[in-house]
Amino acid sequence: MKNILIIGAGLCGSLLALRMAQRGYQVTLVEKRPDLRKVTQDAGRSINLALSDRGLRGLRLAGVEEEAKKLCIPMNGRMIHDKAGNTFLSPYSGRKDEYINSISRPGLNMLLLDEAEKMPNVNIIFNYACEEVDLENASATFRDFNSKKETTITADVIFGTDGAGSAVRKSMFDNHNFLFSFSQQWLSHGYKELEIPAAKDNGYRTYKNALHIWPRGEDMLIALPNLDGSFTVTLFLPYENSDYCFANLTTPEMVHEYFNKEYPDVVEMIPNLSEEFFGNPIGPLGTVKCSPWNSFGKVLLMGDAAHAIVPFYGQGMNASFEDVVVFDEFLEKYIPSRPPQGGGVDWEAIFKEYETLRKKDTDAIADLAVDNFHEMKEHTAMEIFQKKRKLETAFEAEFPKDYYSKYSLVTFKESIPYSEAMKRGRAQDKAILNLIADGKITEKMSLKEKLELVKKHTEAILHDDEVAFG
Amino acid sequence: MKNILIIGAGLCGSLLALRMAQRGYQVTLVEKRPDLRKVTQDAGRSINLALSDRGLRGLRLAGVEEEAKKLCIPMNGRMIHDKAGNTFLSPYSGRKDEYINSISRPGLNMLLLDEAEKMPNVNIIFNYACEEVDLENASATFRDFNSKKETTITADVIFGTDGAGSAVRKSMFDNHNFLFSFSQQWLSHGYKELEIPAAKDNGYRTYKNALHIWPRGEDMLIALPNLDGSFTVTLFLPYENSDYCFANLTTPEMVHEYFNKEYPDVVEMIPNLSEEFFGNPIGPLGTVKCSPWNSFGKVLLMGDAAHAIVPFYGQGMNASFEDVVVFDEFLEKYIPSRPPQGGGVDWEAIFKEYETLRKKDTDAIADLAVDNFHEMKEHTAMEIFQKKRKLETAFEAEFPKDYYSKYSLVTFKESIPYSEAMKRGRAQDKAILNLIADGKITEKMSLKEKLELVKKHTEAILHDDEVAFG
Repeated sequence: MKNILIIGAGLCGSLLALRMAQRGYQVTLVEKRPDLRKVTQDAGRSINLALSDRGLRGLRLAGVEEEAKKLCIPMNGRMIHDKAGNTFLSPYSGRKDEYINSISRPGLNMLLLDEAEKMPNVNIIFNYACEEVDLENASATFRDFNSKKETTITADVIFGTDGAGSAVRKSMFDNHNFLFSFSQQWLSHGYKELEIPAAKDNGYRTYKNALHIWPRGEDMLIALPNLDGSFTVTLFLPYENSDYCFANLTTPEMVHEYFNKEYPDVVEMIPNLSEEFFGNPIGPLGTVKCSPWNSFGKVLLMGDAAHAIVPFYGQGMNASFEDVVVFDEFLEKYIPSRPPQGGGVDWEAIFKEYETLRKKDTDAIADLAVDNFHEMKEHTAMEIFQKKRKLETAFEAEFPKDYYSKYSLVTFKESIPYSEAMKRGRAQDKAILNLIADGKITEKMSLKEKLELVKKHTEAILHDDEVAFG
Repeated sequence: MKNILIIGAGLCGSLLALRMAQRGYQVTLVEKRPDLRKVTQDAGRSINLALSDRGLRGLRLAGVEEEAKKLCIPMNGRMIHDKAGNTFLSPYSGRKDEYINSISRPGLNMLLLDEAEKMPNVNIIFNYACEEVDLENASATFRDFNSKKETTITADVIFGTDGAGSAVRKSMFDNHNFLFSFSQQWLSHGYKELEIPAAKDNGYRTYKNALHIWPRGEDMLIALPNLDGSFTVTLFLPYENSDYCFANLTTPEMVHEYFNKEYPDVVEMIPNLSEEFFGNPIGPLGTVKCSPWNSFGKVLLMGDAAHAIVPFYGQGMNASFEDVVVFDEFLEKYIPSRPPQGGGVDWEAIFKEYETLRKKDTDAIADLAVDNFHEMKEHTAMEIFQKKRKLETAFEAEFPKDYYSKYSLVTFKESIPYSEAMKRGRAQDKAILNLIADGKITEKMSLKEKLELVKKHTEAILHDDEVAFG
């Protein structure tokens, strides 16, 4: 049991290939696109992403954390922009050492491919599109983009890391020899990327070390910095049924009218707004969940192929890298020898145990990401949520070991699984919002007293849920 | 806009056909199976179902309630059977006039087909399997089971009422010109039907007017009465990974061992247990949700095709009939004339408004049905849940206008939508369970005081959720 076929050489697949090679497996890594180190591509995909603690842990496991950090721009908080162009910074945490990073997707992918390729036991094949997987026999058929010829590759086990539109997962969906639970949920909004170019001296046209948000209720614009001084801007807008939506932003005039009204400070920073707008595609925003992740003990889905999420918690890549960490722990437990000794490995048992431990966490981050969509576009502009955020930041600054907001639990507390972070974080949010709404947090209370009250209320909420729902 | 094509002549499709004909539409109703009035079939499908107020309302709308009631056997509560063969009846409501009915699926379907066929403007075609729907042009291709020939039928609008495995829905899933959210979720359990035959004099071998449950934690057996003195029994059992599961109940010895251990009183009532067991198929238990229900204003999904649910709330058929009622209200609002005047009808707007109103309710009953799976197999045997049930029954008997349990809200309160019933019912459950667990409901309190406490606690829970989640 030594030959591993990994389908999809994006972020998750290339990290997995590197790690499996480090464990001594013979790895074939196949990618349908051209080698992104040689050909510029990725039109319509986010070109930068948020990298945080869970993702860094995966990179650390494979020994590439330090290299990756060179590509990072720290973002210390959300910079909120109102319609008048006023801004205020809402820190991600009250603890100084907790921040997230903006990183180039292709940059990081190149780094991982370079590292994987250095391993003598990794073979990378580009331009091979997976057409079908024979799940019971761990073999996959590919079509070569250039020659158009079909090739079949057989392995001991196959990993499907081919992203949200996974062809490997489609083979599972289409197979009727087992029950495959599957869900794809689209938001009513799509997204479009734009660019704020660098200033003349490669400087940044707005504050560099933040994730910028222009929350407008139904719509939202965000921007993440790039190393070259530019920002990648993403517009989130309803497809239809709104004063401004993709269905009616069909002329340069409409686009300018909309941006002038909602984002006047951005218009100044994007010189060729309408060219950008009409030159870039509209992307859909979807959540994919499925189960089982493995079929017949021969094929396992990982990363977005198993659990695609919307981008609003900045955890998509981080969750995929954490998959590799969690899976690696099972390998360490059951197959510690390097190189692995042949025979006798019950992959199906490993796959099932991995899913049992992991799926509740990827389900949780999927749900949290959808919640955060609403939080970012609406709540960041609402007074009660700003009060809550201010209180939490004060808790974290004053009592750094005693309080973690939901955002901190999810983003910075890699020792706590997403599902736990969700449960505790939601209870805390509910506690604080109710205490504020009911006027139970008063001016004369000390911060310590406020914290104790929030904790007590949070525990009561968790207890009541436990009794009712187990 | 007068020609209506309805694909699927099951319960929902035949009621819809009847109703649309009553409104003056020219209806073509197409079914892939043979005419069940002429050919015995339905192997592996539940042969009786629970009919309650929401379903009766649909039948009333079409003027067939009284005829249908002749097929009904009232079930006043759950008859719980323990392992020693002891039984106790847990009423569905403290109000005497609230009960559910056991009704034959084919019997009711035949009645609806007969009524539809009496209408001069209904044409029913059997043995036509839908292969594909051209969504943008409202035309569908069918294969004739006998001649194997293909036929295309075009209409002004098409209704897909072809059940959980809907071919119409598949055409939507496969169409990439719009974003189709879709979810299919399978339980880890399957089901198998068995029969308790009638006693010699067509009498019933156990109490007639109840839904019988043998709750065993992970497994469960239920039985519903038929008019001929028999009961249809359904076994719900894990597929695998359990002491007894479908994967290991492979011999008559194992089946008898299992039944003797868990359901000794049933063994006496099913003379040919293992023949029944091995003669009947194992069915999967799935929930299907999707959106949008309509495509291009030309095709609308209704009933199980739009929202298949697991059977544990006895609401599948009721929800489908309620679909017809809710949809009919929109027709009455927008197209009241009979026969409908041609032209100018914005079907897409009607379809969208219908889904906006209805989907949150069918989502709710889907979730409630999964919850009830756990309640039936585990909770009905647990002390705290029995205490809760007893208290609620007392509330309903003593204060019939002031209290409705979740079950009553869902099953008997047709004036309240499922989503409201779920929200209020869950809050009530949470309130009662916590009050019992925390010892806050004491012996010395009057029933009235207990009710006031439950109500107060319920309102507090609803308020807290409202503040936190809106």
